[in-house]
Order: sequence, then structure tokens, then C-alpha cells
Amino acid sequence: MWRNYRWAALLLVAIISVSVPAQNPPTPNKRESRISAAVRAVLTAQSQAWNRGDIEGYMDGYARSSDTVFVSGDSVARGWQTVLDRYRKKYDSRDKMGTLTFSDLEITPLGNDAALALGRWHLQRATDEPHGRFSLILRRIKRGWKIVHDHSSAAS
Amino acid sequence: MWRNYRWAALLLVAIISVSVPAQNPPTPNKRESRISAAVRAVLTAQSQAWNRGDIEGYMDGYARSSDTVFVSGDSVARGWQTVLDRYRKKYDSRDKMGTLTFSDLEITPLGNDAALALGRWHLQRATDEPHGRFSLILRRIKRGWKIVHDHSSAAS
Repeated sequence: MWRNYRWAALLLVAIISVSVPAQNPPTPNKRESRISAAVRAVLTAQSQAWNRGDIEGYMDGYARSSDTVFVSGDSVARGWQTVLDRYRKKYDSRDKMGTLTFSDLEITPLGNDAALALGRWHLQRATDEPHGRFSLILRRIKRGWKIVHDHSSAAS
Repeated sequence: MWRNYRWAALLLVAIISVSVPAQNPPTPNKRESRISAAVRAVLTAQSQAWNRGDIEGYMDGYARSSDTVFVSGDSVARGWQTVLDRYRKKYDSRDKMGTLTFSDLEITPLGNDAALALGRWHLQRATDEPHGRFSLILRRIKRGWKIVHDHSSAAS
């Protein structure tokens, strides 16, 4: 009987030893690189959508909310739909859309459910090439990581 | 003896009843308004420092780190000291500093230790009045809430 208890105890220790590592939360570095990879994927999908002329696909990187904020120059625009409508008017041809490239990405997690992304944007078109920097705030929502705040500025 | 235990147990229940509410974390709304108040205080202190000609006092709103980031137009500047030195060169007289006003502040907590602040900046000077918007990321560090990332843009 005592032997049986001892075996049971040993088995319990073995189970705990095996299961505990799997239950631990990821280390900060692992968490950071996971968040970073998820955010990069959002931006890659955005530029790919843009470069195939798919404005709604590009806009899928943003939270579909009336609270989503777009800041540039001295103006603030609010709401996913509002900005989609503006983009459709402003970029009503492939020539106007040009080729969008994001580069020099730096992603900083802010807790578990928010991240800051700093980077460069560059639009290559036949007649000009507007470019500048962006600071994005992304949140982890049900549909994944989405941009909730976009502050973009252009070279003057 | 039993009576004593019973009194001790009652006392224990009373202590727990009184102490638990004080140990609860603040409700989300309370937490949000606390963070919001703390962030507003940082920005108020900054504009007050600026308007008495105290550039170092203004810079106290930023984290004293080489990682602190300042974005505008197409350029990124890094480091508290670097930016302090630039400000001192660029604004070497009270006339150049003018009167700084922040307005239309919107503060969004991002977890417990980070917040986003969106607002307007306006510099009233004798000969011009540059103005625009800013998006700030603040973190709660040992010295309190400090700006770690500043993306500012100007009316063109």
C-alpha cells in the first residue's frame, strides 16, 4: 500500500514537472517577438493590398470602428468608413495609388494588448514620390492586431 | 476557551470585510481618470515651463533616455539630451519661444503603464503662429508619467 502511494506521488511530481513549463506565460522577449511579428504581418498585408489596388484590403489593417483616428498635418479624421471613403476618392486610379513601401519598422509592445509601430512610408508614382514617417498604435482585438491610431507626416 | 476562538474568528471576518475593498484594484473608469489626470498634469507642467522660458523644465515631461523618440515631417530624432540641445539652439530667445498652448487633449490609457495623448499645439509669436497636432506615448516609470514617443506635425 505504501509503495502504491509512493508511486502515485512520484507520478504526480512527474506530471507537474512536465506540465508546468507549458503553462508558464511566455518570457518578455518571446512575447515581444510574437507581438512584433503580428504587427509586421499587418503592415505587410496592408502594403500588399495597396499595391494590388485593393483599398478595402489596405483598410483591413485598421480597426473597423468610428473611434479609429487618423492624424496628419493639422487635421484629425475619425472613423474607419470615413477614411475608406476618402481614400477611394483620393486614389481613384492605379496611377494615383502608385507603389507603397513601408520600411525601417520599429515595434514596441505596450503591455499585452497594445503596440507602437514607428516606420517610414514611401509612395512611388510616375510623377512624384511622397514619403514620410508614421507612428501607429495597434490594439489586439477580436479580429487580431489592428491599427487604432495613425499619425503620419510627410517630408516638406 | 471556545468563546475566545469565536470572538477571534468574528474579529478576523470583520478585518477582512474592512480591508478587502481597500485592496481591490480601482475600477477601469477610476483608473482611466487617474491616468488621464496624471498625463494632463505632465502637459500642463510642460507648457507652463515653456512659457516662463524654461526649456529644461519643458523637457522634464520627456523620459530622460537615449531611447526617447521625436518624430516630425520625415525625420526622427532620438535621445533626451540630443533634443534638449536642439531646442536650446533653435529657441535661444524668449521671442522665438513665444507662448505655447496645448488644447483638445484626448487621453487613452493603453494598459496600466502606457497612455496615448492626442492634442493640438499652438505657438503664438510676434511674427507667426506655427501650430498642428501631436500624438504622444507616455509610460509610467519611476519618476512618474513621462513621454517616450512624440510624433508632431504642423499645418502646411
